[in-house]
Amino acid sequence: MGDARQVSDDLSARLDAALRDFMTTATDELRGIGEELDPVADALQDYVLDGGKRLRPMFCYWGAVAAGASEEPALVRAAASLELLQACALVHDDLIDHSDTRRGSPAMHRRFANLHRARAWSGDADDFGSAAAILLGDVLLAWSDAMFVTSGLGDEQLRRAQAVSATMRTEVMAGQYLDIVEQARGETTVERALQVARYKSAKYTVERPLQLGAAIAGAAEKVVAAYSGYGIQIGEAFQLADDLAGVFGDPASTGKPVGDDLREGKQTVLIALALGLASPAQAAFLRERLGDSELADNDVDALREVI
Amino acid sequence: MGDARQVSDDLSARLDAALRDFMTTATDELRGIGEELDPVADALQDYVLDGGKRLRPMFCYWGAVAAGASEEPALVRAAASLELLQACALVHDDLIDHSDTRRGSPAMHRRFANLHRARAWSGDADDFGSAAAILLGDVLLAWSDAMFVTSGLGDEQLRRAQAVSATMRTEVMAGQYLDIVEQARGETTVERALQVARYKSAKYTVERPLQLGAAIAGAAEKVVAAYSGYGIQIGEAFQLADDLAGVFGDPASTGKPVGDDLREGKQTVLIALALGLASPAQAAFLRERLGDSELADNDVDALREVI
Repeated sequence: MGDARQVSDDLSARLDAALRDFMTTATDELRGIGEELDPVADALQDYVLDGGKRLRPMFCYWGAVAAGASEEPALVRAAASLELLQACALVHDDLIDHSDTRRGSPAMHRRFANLHRARAWSGDADDFGSAAAILLGDVLLAWSDAMFVTSGLGDEQLRRAQAVSATMRTEVMAGQYLDIVEQARGETTVERALQVARYKSAKYTVERPLQLGAAIAGAAEKVVAAYSGYGIQIGEAFQLADDLAGVFGDPASTGKPVGDDLREGKQTVLIALALGLASPAQAAFLRERLGDSELADNDVDALREVI
Repeated sequence: MGDARQVSDDLSARLDAALRDFMTTATDELRGIGEELDPVADALQDYVLDGGKRLRPMFCYWGAVAAGASEEPALVRAAASLELLQACALVHDDLIDHSDTRRGSPAMHRRFANLHRARAWSGDADDFGSAAAILLGDVLLAWSDAMFVTSGLGDEQLRRAQAVSATMRTEVMAGQYLDIVEQARGETTVERALQVARYKSAKYTVERPLQLGAAIAGAAEKVVAAYSGYGIQIGEAFQLADDLAGVFGDPASTGKPVGDDLREGKQTVLIALALGLASPAQAAFLRERLGDSELADNDVDALREVI
């Protein structure tokens, strides 16, 4: 176990180094366009390099190595590029969810709204923040692809991997759309909430990164199928744990205020199950208060009690 | 001239056919995820296939053919993929600019706000529309890459082209960011407005597509440099014409209401020049009314008169 932890820390350091190299070159290109882009370059570097668990790169890397790929720097760079796709998803997701913080720092749209206020620019600061977050997310999505294709993988590896990569991008956006539809419908079912979790998290976080690794390794169809079964189950477990953390988690480790998911009214599997098992009075209470952005801490406690 | 028009119409039809093929396959993948995604698939197909001048694909195609590439289907598909990048930019740009229409139809965020209202979903319809537009733009950006890499170009052609493609994506987002900073600063200069036009339009619309074509063709450095000089000039001219159309254009051909740019307070080269040449009274009038979202038609006429 001590060895496994050491190996994982080493990989984490190699992924970080690869991201740092790429981000330095890419943000230098931005800075070269004009000094107005310095805050953009700074924000992108901070966002990608200050934290994140690098889950998707790790699954991709181990998926490749377990299927026989050699542990070369090109593989580390290709795997690390998934972190930029994830950064895009988080920047846009926080904007969509009106989340104020990410990993204990201001969310991207808040950071740029603050810049607008600090410079005393004209117009609406929140509008400026939203616009900047949309554009920075787009840059991150474009860069995830740029980092992947310049990773040093061979032509055959790239071609095999790009099909998985394309599916993965479509699925994560589709999963996010399913998620906003579920929130808009107002009340989900266990089945529908599981479908959102499958696309937004299980496939995107575990299954597709593992398969991307398999594609890089040129693994047999049998390995790809095995990864799929394993990946979806682990991935769904991740999402269910994340839903629990969103309601019961410690803000110090989640980086989000207590009760944020309850104030947002997130329609998760947890909530669908709670509604199914609650007494009529409890269900009515849940339905009434869930999604109330003004929830006080004692309201949050009462909701947690019911759930 | 009749021949040139015929050749251009033929290319336009071939680009449309390539886009239709790609969009059919890609949206089928989306529809397969769940019926909730049918409106997304429909919206993406309508957006990409109903109009657009295909300028960037045409510059890419002619840039390649003029540099010696053969006119094969793979080149048409690779060139057409630029239209999906442009679709992403337009979807996100309309959201950022709060534009209600695009080519005479509701902008993407308006279309999904309307869907939310029609389904009588809960929560804020405009919020839902914005969220959907962010996600659909992301899908289009990811698909532009997917269409490019599956175009059928050879490995060497792809590698050469991807460097240009990466720069092009970074530059267009950087140009849009420069644009929102200029709007937020409240008043631009001719020099700064020209820089925005260069990145947001000249490089993105003409120079980089031509160079992408040159890269596909494997053209000599000399050709790439020649394309650059020509491309930037043509591209800046395009943007200046677009600025004029935004103020003086016929809504039937621009697809936008009269005076939209004036109500948005767009800080264009045209406005910077007008401010520089105006009398003190005219300049004060321009500064006072520009960006007033409530401008009546006779106010628009008065502003046009001054400009």
